[in-house]
Amino acid sequence: MFTYGAPQLKFGAGSSAEIGYDLGQYGARRVLVVTDPGVAATGGPQRVAEQMKAYGIEAEVFDRVHVEPTDASMKEAVAYARETGPWDAIVAVGGGSSIDTAKAINLLTTNDGELADYLNPPIGAGRAPARPLNPLVAVPTTTGTGAESTTVCVLDVLDLRVKTGISHPRLRPTLAVVDPELTRSQPAGVTAAAGMDIVCHALESYTARPYTSYERKRPEQRVPYCGANPVADMWSERALGLTARSFRTAVRDGDDMTARTEMALAATFAGLGFGNAGVHLPHANAYPIAGQVKDFHPDGYPDEEPMVPHGMAVALTAPEAFRFTFEAGPDRHVRAAELLDPELDHGGDPSEYLPAALLRLMRDIGLPNGIGATGYTESDVPDLVAGTLKQQRLLATAPRDATEEDIAGILTRSLALW
Amino acid sequence: MFTYGAPQLKFGAGSSAEIGYDLGQYGARRVLVVTDPGVAATGGPQRVAEQMKAYGIEAEVFDRVHVEPTDASMKEAVAYARETGPWDAIVAVGGGSSIDTAKAINLLTTNDGELADYLNPPIGAGRAPARPLNPLVAVPTTTGTGAESTTVCVLDVLDLRVKTGISHPRLRPTLAVVDPELTRSQPAGVTAAAGMDIVCHALESYTARPYTSYERKRPEQRVPYCGANPVADMWSERALGLTARSFRTAVRDGDDMTARTEMALAATFAGLGFGNAGVHLPHANAYPIAGQVKDFHPDGYPDEEPMVPHGMAVALTAPEAFRFTFEAGPDRHVRAAELLDPELDHGGDPSEYLPAALLRLMRDIGLPNGIGATGYTESDVPDLVAGTLKQQRLLATAPRDATEEDIAGILTRSLALW
Repeated sequence: MFTYGAPQLKFGAGSSAEIGYDLGQYGARRVLVVTDPGVAATGGPQRVAEQMKAYGIEAEVFDRVHVEPTDASMKEAVAYARETGPWDAIVAVGGGSSIDTAKAINLLTTNDGELADYLNPPIGAGRAPARPLNPLVAVPTTTGTGAESTTVCVLDVLDLRVKTGISHPRLRPTLAVVDPELTRSQPAGVTAAAGMDIVCHALESYTARPYTSYERKRPEQRVPYCGANPVADMWSERALGLTARSFRTAVRDGDDMTARTEMALAATFAGLGFGNAGVHLPHANAYPIAGQVKDFHPDGYPDEEPMVPHGMAVALTAPEAFRFTFEAGPDRHVRAAELLDPELDHGGDPSEYLPAALLRLMRDIGLPNGIGATGYTESDVPDLVAGTLKQQRLLATAPRDATEEDIAGILTRSLALW
Repeated sequence: MFTYGAPQLKFGAGSSAEIGYDLGQYGARRVLVVTDPGVAATGGPQRVAEQMKAYGIEAEVFDRVHVEPTDASMKEAVAYARETGPWDAIVAVGGGSSIDTAKAINLLTTNDGELADYLNPPIGAGRAPARPLNPLVAVPTTTGTGAESTTVCVLDVLDLRVKTGISHPRLRPTLAVVDPELTRSQPAGVTAAAGMDIVCHALESYTARPYTSYERKRPEQRVPYCGANPVADMWSERALGLTARSFRTAVRDGDDMTARTEMALAATFAGLGFGNAGVHLPHANAYPIAGQVKDFHPDGYPDEEPMVPHGMAVALTAPEAFRFTFEAGPDRHVRAAELLDPELDHGGDPSEYLPAALLRLMRDIGLPNGIGATGYTESDVPDLVAGTLKQQRLLATAPRDATEEDIAGILTRSLALW
């Protein structure tokens, strides 16, 4: 048995200009717009708030989302929303950071308790929200995370130097408004890193343990991630086809609106896929790679703090991860490589097709050459492995069980990729 | 710009046994189960009602849905639900008739006014529901209508001898529970007719006017049917592939659960496609073909009243309709034919591919040879044309404008198909 959930979707240039109407349909009268300072500087969130007035909606902008949210930044956002509430609806305008922060705000302005009560165990108490949440409209301005489609909210717990999250069906946005015009300002470095997140969402969902391979669950045991299934497969295949066609162009020429539109569609499609099937090894590895960052400052991102952007952190171990998982489903890995790289050379060892397609893509769009290029050395591998092993929720979706040694091998071989 | 809406989905053998849990998630305490006498006789709806008790939910079964609902039958169902309410949620177990009746019950137990207030103009007043509806769980027992995915509710207005409906996003079920086990009892004649509804949903959505061809609408002018778009295309293509593989088998051997499962998936996929893109000429023609029925009694359906089942009524003019629309999008028509019939012979006139694929399929599954075989003669064509022309909502989605003469030609050439 598999489940499939999705937000309602409005897609197209100009769609963000009519959010006031959509909120009116939900009966909203007082709305909090959530964004980060970089996106706020584009004026987009303020425009979204302004146009709501025509529909009799009072809107306020909270623009202090932290890029790569932390427990501290989310608590601050929640405290603000609780003090200034009640709110009838939340609108997130931004990348995954803004959308995930908005999910936490929505949860904690409709349900009591604190952030830690709801974080995934063992870090948090894994409490489920007792009450329904308010309508949440997600308006992505990057083409990557698919956060507009998913039921998860990801954050860094600063004291523990670990990334974790909250996962519950009620966190899923009600409506995703995907306006490719808003992605025009996305810098090339962000387009590249976030785009690799799309690619890995699709590849990981597509190669995930099939839903039929799990023991039958009782309804109360079901989780949003149910493994590869016919619906998620369809979204993943289509997302790969779109990235094959438009990813390199969107990085090279950010004003190519055909490529921007296809990447926006690909991000949403991949989100609809992995939001139901799940992701596995590359995402599990990405948590410690981003969480234990040393002194890396990627192009296109805020410069104040070192960071390995999420999509980059995911991509850097993907070639090795798929080399490892190949034997669990050779046909799927080959098919995925064909979709990602229609020019694929069908000679040689089929287990190399997908890693080769990924490496070609990563070099073309200017990704760093492995986690070594982001500051890690072989001596960091044990700490990274420990971080990966904390992501049991994701490792459970991997098509092949990975031991501590397997993960260490994947990370070590990912220090330099070419 | 296009919009995309869908219910949440739970798919798989046994999924109908855990609806009590799902209703509990919505906080439901008192639930009306809506079904028709034929489905009630299988015991399925009663089992669905019984298992809710374990979750502290009180459920009652209303089993007087009319197959091919009428204004009279819907009014009776609504009157019953209003008298015995309030209800927190509605569960429909059955084919499109039960699901559509449940939509009307849900609308009219949460909003005031009468059925006629909400029917599409010019027959009704086209009023939009002012208040949100209750959760509606749709549990299809036939593989065809896709009513579990759509925002429409279709009925016969007896006095006017016309089929019409109600169309509003709020009518869409909250959750579709698709349990292929429930379709095992579907007779071969129903599998054949309902399966042609799947095929035509997919073909009509796929060949519909593209969403980019419409003038830009204001948000309050948007309708659920927005024309062919990348999301609907994906569902339609996948649905065609599944029917190509399993339709003939499901008709021939109703206990082949692989074929049953694929047809259940195809029905849901096609519903998700046309529920957003829309349908056009074959469906527009189907309304008068079913509404003006004379004395036709198809295999597998209740025998008391004459009827042309919906899927059959749709299918019988489809070959001619697609011959007519071919010139509006030759590539799409050819691609659709290839998906529907992977053995397709690529010789001859490409405009004949899709009609030929349809005719082969219809003969293989035992459909009548044209509308003539259901009792119509050439002298009935003017009345049928008048009925088709009333379906302006559907004709607006056709890829090529059809005049009165065009429609008369399609109907006349559909009197005998082979």
